[in-house]
Amino acid sequence: MVNKICIIGVGLIGGSLALALKKTGFCQTVIGAGRNQHRLEQALSLGVIDECELDYAKAVADADLVFISVPLGAMEEVFEKIRPGLKSHTIVTDGGSAKHSVIEAASEKLGVQLGQFVPGHPIAGTEKSGVEAAFDSLYQNRKVILTPLEDNTPESVKLVEHMWQSAGAEVEIMGARHHDLVLAGTSHMPHVLAYGLVDCLNNAEDVEEIFDFAAGGFRDFTRIASSDPVMWRDICLANGDAILAMMHKYQETLDTLKQAIAQEDGEQLETLFKRAKAARDKFCM
Amino acid sequence: MVNKICIIGVGLIGGSLALALKKTGFCQTVIGAGRNQHRLEQALSLGVIDECELDYAKAVADADLVFISVPLGAMEEVFEKIRPGLKSHTIVTDGGSAKHSVIEAASEKLGVQLGQFVPGHPIAGTEKSGVEAAFDSLYQNRKVILTPLEDNTPESVKLVEHMWQSAGAEVEIMGARHHDLVLAGTSHMPHVLAYGLVDCLNNAEDVEEIFDFAAGGFRDFTRIASSDPVMWRDICLANGDAILAMMHKYQETLDTLKQAIAQEDGEQLETLFKRAKAARDKFCM
Repeated sequence: MVNKICIIGVGLIGGSLALALKKTGFCQTVIGAGRNQHRLEQALSLGVIDECELDYAKAVADADLVFISVPLGAMEEVFEKIRPGLKSHTIVTDGGSAKHSVIEAASEKLGVQLGQFVPGHPIAGTEKSGVEAAFDSLYQNRKVILTPLEDNTPESVKLVEHMWQSAGAEVEIMGARHHDLVLAGTSHMPHVLAYGLVDCLNNAEDVEEIFDFAAGGFRDFTRIASSDPVMWRDICLANGDAILAMMHKYQETLDTLKQAIAQEDGEQLETLFKRAKAARDKFCM
Repeated sequence: MVNKICIIGVGLIGGSLALALKKTGFCQTVIGAGRNQHRLEQALSLGVIDECELDYAKAVADADLVFISVPLGAMEEVFEKIRPGLKSHTIVTDGGSAKHSVIEAASEKLGVQLGQFVPGHPIAGTEKSGVEAAFDSLYQNRKVILTPLEDNTPESVKLVEHMWQSAGAEVEIMGARHHDLVLAGTSHMPHVLAYGLVDCLNNAEDVEEIFDFAAGGFRDFTRIASSDPVMWRDICLANGDAILAMMHKYQETLDTLKQAIAQEDGEQLETLFKRAKAARDKFCM
C-alpha cells in the first residue's frame, strides 16, 4: 500500500493504471504530470487523477512511486526533469515499449539514483489513445515485463511487481536485451511490415481499386498500420538494432518463399504454410 | 430465373451460393457434385442442395448454370470431366482466387466450348470451411469480380452477373491479368507474408516465450496464417508471377525502411508511417 503515486503522461496507459490502482486501493492519491494543462484538467475532471502538476520535479517530490508513460523519444527529458525533485526512497518505473534505450537514458540522467529506476513494459493497449480512452481493467490478465537493473534492490522490484499485480496484470522478469528482441519480433517488426505493405500498395497507380477489393484478411493484416506514426517512429529509433536483426531473419524466410514460388515448389510451400498454421493455431488460440 | 444450377465443390463458397440462390428463388433446383459421397449427403441433409452426383459430366448435363468452387489445383480436372456432359446452352463460371491460370485450364480442356465459361471470383469467405459453415448471406454486400473472355456472349456474362446480384453481391468487371495483380497485392502476398512471419518466429530458440508475449496486434496481423495451407499453396502456384511482382515491389519498400532504421532517419520513418496510416484509415474504415 502506497501513499502517493505520480503518473507522468496521463494518456491511455498512464490513465488506466491510475484508475486501476485507485479502484483496488493500492494507493491513496494519484498526481498526474504532463506538458498540457488542459489535458491534465481533463484527467482531473474524469476522476483519473486527484492532483496535477506541470513541473515534473515538483510532481515527484512527495511520491512513493513514479510511473513514466510518455513516448520513448521524451523519456530522456523526463528523467532529466524529475531528478532534482526525486527523493532517495522514491521508486521510478516506466511503460516504454523498448527497454535498452530507456535504461541508457535513465543511466545518463539519473546518475547515482539509477538504482531507483525499475524498467517495465505493460503488454497492453488499444487502438485508441488519450486519457478519455483510459479504463480500469486495461491490465486485467495482461502481461507486464520488468527488466530489473543490477542496481535495483529486491524491494524496489517487488514494489513495482506488486503495483502491476494490483492492477490485475501478470508480471514476468527478463533481461532488457532479450525483451527488446522478443518485442521486435512480435510487435515492432510486424508494425514496420504492415506500414510498409500499406505504403507499397498506396504507391500503385490503381490504388483506389486495390483497396476497394481488399477483403477482411487484409483489414486484419493492416490494422496495426493505423497506429500512431510518431510513437512507432520513436520505437524504431529506440529499438533499431533488434528490429533490424529480426528483419534480417525475416528476409531469409521471404527469400525462401520467393524461391519456392518462382520454382513452383508446391511441396516446400505447403510444408512451410502447414508449419506456420500449426504454430499460429497452437500459440494464438 | 434459372431452372437448375450445378455446384461443383459444395463447401463454404459453393454451399453459401446454393443457399442464397434458393432463398431468393433465382433457381428451382441445385444439384451438388463432388468427390465425396458422404459430404454430398451432408449437404443434402442440411438442405443446401437438392440432388447430388459424383459423376461431373452427368451433374452438368441438365444444368443451365454451373458454378465450380474447387481448389485452384483441381480446376483443370473439373473442366476435363464436365466437358462430355456440357450442353451448348449451359454457362459455366467459377470462384477461383486467381483468374489467369483458371482461364488457361479452361482453354485447354473446354476447347471450342471455352466461350461458355465466364471466369469469376467472389471476394468473400470466413476462416471456416466446409458445407456446415455455409450460410445464405455470405455474399451480401460483398464484391464479385468477373473477368470475361473475348469468346463470351454479352448474355452469358449478364447471366452470371445476375446470379451474383441475386445472392446480394456487387459485380465488377476487369481483365484477368489485372485481377491477378490486384489480388496478389491485397490478399495473396499478405498471406505469404503472414505465413512467413509466423514461421520465422517459430524457428527462434525461445519460440514459446515469443508467442507468449504476442499482443492483440500480432494476433490480428497473423490471423490469415491460420488459413488452409493447401488452398494457399495452390494460389501461390496459380498466381506466382503476380505474387512475385508484388513481392518485388514490397521488397523495395522494406529496403527503404531498413535503411531509414539503420540510419536513424526519424523524419523518413514518420513520413512513411503517416502516409500509410492515412491510406489505411481512408480506405479501410
